[in-house]
Amino acid sequence: MQLILLSGGSGKSLWPLSNDARSKQFLSLLEAPDGGSESMICRIERQIRKSGLDCDITIATNIAQRDPILSQLGGRVDIVTEPERRDTFPAIALTAEWLRLVKGCPLDETIAIMPCDPYTEEGYFDVIAAMAESVGNGAAELVLMGITPRYDSTSFGYIVPQEGKADDNGMLHVTRFVEKPSAQSAHDLISEGAFWNGGVFVIKLGTLCSYVWEYVKEDSFDKLRARYCDLPKISFDYEVVEKAENLGVIPFDGLWEDLGTWNALSKRLQSQVIGDVIMGRNVRHATVVNELEMPVMCEGVRDIVVAASPDGILVCGKDQSDRIKDYVAGLKRRPMYEERRWGTYRVLNYQKYPDGFEELTKTITLNPGCCISYQVHHHRSEVWTVTNGRGIFILDGVAREVGRGDVLDIKVGQLHAIKAQDSHLTFIEVQAGAPLVEEDIERFDWPEV
Amino acid sequence: MQLILLSGGSGKSLWPLSNDARSKQFLSLLEAPDGGSESMICRIERQIRKSGLDCDITIATNIAQRDPILSQLGGRVDIVTEPERRDTFPAIALTAEWLRLVKGCPLDETIAIMPCDPYTEEGYFDVIAAMAESVGNGAAELVLMGITPRYDSTSFGYIVPQEGKADDNGMLHVTRFVEKPSAQSAHDLISEGAFWNGGVFVIKLGTLCSYVWEYVKEDSFDKLRARYCDLPKISFDYEVVEKAENLGVIPFDGLWEDLGTWNALSKRLQSQVIGDVIMGRNVRHATVVNELEMPVMCEGVRDIVVAASPDGILVCGKDQSDRIKDYVAGLKRRPMYEERRWGTYRVLNYQKYPDGFEELTKTITLNPGCCISYQVHHHRSEVWTVTNGRGIFILDGVAREVGRGDVLDIKVGQLHAIKAQDSHLTFIEVQAGAPLVEEDIERFDWPEV
Repeated sequence: MQLILLSGGSGKSLWPLSNDARSKQFLSLLEAPDGGSESMICRIERQIRKSGLDCDITIATNIAQRDPILSQLGGRVDIVTEPERRDTFPAIALTAEWLRLVKGCPLDETIAIMPCDPYTEEGYFDVIAAMAESVGNGAAELVLMGITPRYDSTSFGYIVPQEGKADDNGMLHVTRFVEKPSAQSAHDLISEGAFWNGGVFVIKLGTLCSYVWEYVKEDSFDKLRARYCDLPKISFDYEVVEKAENLGVIPFDGLWEDLGTWNALSKRLQSQVIGDVIMGRNVRHATVVNELEMPVMCEGVRDIVVAASPDGILVCGKDQSDRIKDYVAGLKRRPMYEERRWGTYRVLNYQKYPDGFEELTKTITLNPGCCISYQVHHHRSEVWTVTNGRGIFILDGVAREVGRGDVLDIKVGQLHAIKAQDSHLTFIEVQAGAPLVEEDIERFDWPEV
Repeated sequence: MQLILLSGGSGKSLWPLSNDARSKQFLSLLEAPDGGSESMICRIERQIRKSGLDCDITIATNIAQRDPILSQLGGRVDIVTEPERRDTFPAIALTAEWLRLVKGCPLDETIAIMPCDPYTEEGYFDVIAAMAESVGNGAAELVLMGITPRYDSTSFGYIVPQEGKADDNGMLHVTRFVEKPSAQSAHDLISEGAFWNGGVFVIKLGTLCSYVWEYVKEDSFDKLRARYCDLPKISFDYEVVEKAENLGVIPFDGLWEDLGTWNALSKRLQSQVIGDVIMGRNVRHATVVNELEMPVMCEGVRDIVVAASPDGILVCGKDQSDRIKDYVAGLKRRPMYEERRWGTYRVLNYQKYPDGFEELTKTITLNPGCCISYQVHHHRSEVWTVTNGRGIFILDGVAREVGRGDVLDIKVGQLHAIKAQDSHLTFIEVQAGAPLVEEDIERFDWPEV
């Protein structure tokens, strides 16, 4: 079986810890089995490996998430990135064609598709195994997971099964779907035995590809990827699920939560107090997550979330935490913290002067053996002060070993690169110039020196 | 008349905006007459000048407050600093002797002594003028200001006047003092006509000095200052007020507030929202003061204070804000922002590695024409990147003009200094070495170059 994990999300709902470069599934805030912390995507990957599902994992995502996925899951998964953001159908279509054309999977291979961020338990993966069996034995063309509803939700889609008994594999046939019903309809649907649609699907690769071929069919993945824009901007539910002929659903009755707000996440955190926090004696039901170097002090408050990161500070009543995404949409600020394939950086200071001159100070940490590409900037100088580790620094083709206290003065137009040796390499970078834009960079191959 | 303003305070109660280097009286948060903001000490100096009191101002303070006072009040006041922190009697004694020995004030000069941080109004200074008249005409040896009590406070001292009518100048004679009574006693005292002791005293210089001479008498201020430790560690109230023979009190019935907690200060702020703040629609009675470059977002909270500075972040119910000083006492962290005579600095990052190596990154702004002394460090290197303004930089005796984008690489043991030219000069400083301690500095005279 091949498993496609969908990793998307805009990073607004868990601001300021999540941002456009760090969606919620990458936040290391959940309790790991060893007592440490892990992210949602690490948790689900760990659960899949432990479940006994015999599958490879391919993550369908966008380019901004490639680096954090590599950093967190390394080479344990494949990654297929969309050339532009469209919708779930094109993203899944692209990944299916990658499985066929690049990985060489046969058309009768079973494919499971699921989101990367549900907070769930072992039984969830047992249901996926049963779904795969139903598709394998031809009981249905496409099998969905039906989550047992906990309340009259108006924000989920509902799956209505046929009346009657489930087959030996626990599968029911599906009669219809209802998207985000009113509260009254939701109540009636649940009385009828309807399930929430958890976004988990199992289908044969050939069946899936036949939906793609209605729009595009190419004999190489590169050609197909170049025609990505020919795939309609539509969800997988509308394009595939609602058109499929013989649909099954297998219920899942266990733990299943969307940790998409601070209120929901706070109940599953490794600890209610993370980071440098001073809690007063008159604090009740507060969750405080502090990623900054400075202390957060709380006193005389209750039922609130306080979250602080280099992007900003949130102080929010827990029952109002679903509202913050609306305000975050209005923020026009570069991410102040990013996880990249080579390591991480954090912005310490940024100043733009009235005449356009800018200064940006960062602390940068390269993972062992990793490097920043050989590059040149045409409008800014940079000064790096190495504060920890050892590395190889190249300036205009001349390499030298550098370490603590070394000052690397890089003028406008000078080619430069750096590579960490066998431990982390940390340095402070001060950029100065105008304009300080992402595009002021030309990249070259790592030189022979 | 000579006016002694007492400026002390440990900076804990308005954390994180106040710290050991920036006591509450220096925070520019109150509304100024021009609609801008001003600090408590600027407000009181402005009020004294406007009151018509014909007086010079001398500020009795400690060395840590000398730079912020110079920065905020410039040459408009004299400053006398204690060699070590003792109590209000020695601090006032030292200043009185400075007035006598350095400024040359005659012994029959009238001295008014007052704290620098009450939030008050015009009438307060009219009462000081009346107090000076009572001392001048010999009606009393020492006259106090009696604040009309607003409630049964258990945290003030009370002044109990003799029964009977005030004299033509509004003065009553004093029978006794009660320090911090119980609530019941406070209630009874107020019924008897007692006043709060506002810490404002008027006395003749000669009378004041006679109390000093009981411990120390010298013919030069330097000699006296060298014997500061011979003055008892005791408050002015205990040493002078409670011993004086003929005591008067003149009541003040106007606006008089101690803005010593966030709750009290919040009512007098220039604005309830200061800095980069996003307020949600469901926020009520919140005060948010944000000195950081990053945004603070609030939603679904009420009756709280949020304050953020480079020293930390406070989230506090307004009715509990008197409790935070207890927690702040436990913080062991260097001030991250300081106002110095030559300008300001803010710490951007600090890291200490397990083997003792440290890194400290700051942004530093020199006021026009101001300089950092010619100095050398024996355990750290520094790299400065100039981001705004122009200056003269001296390295091992060689001077040069520097400006934007210039990188100044200062190795361990190199003598260096910098002076701003006719505008502000800003640079990023990265320190690296071990140990990074305040004492790793030798200062020299500005060289002839």
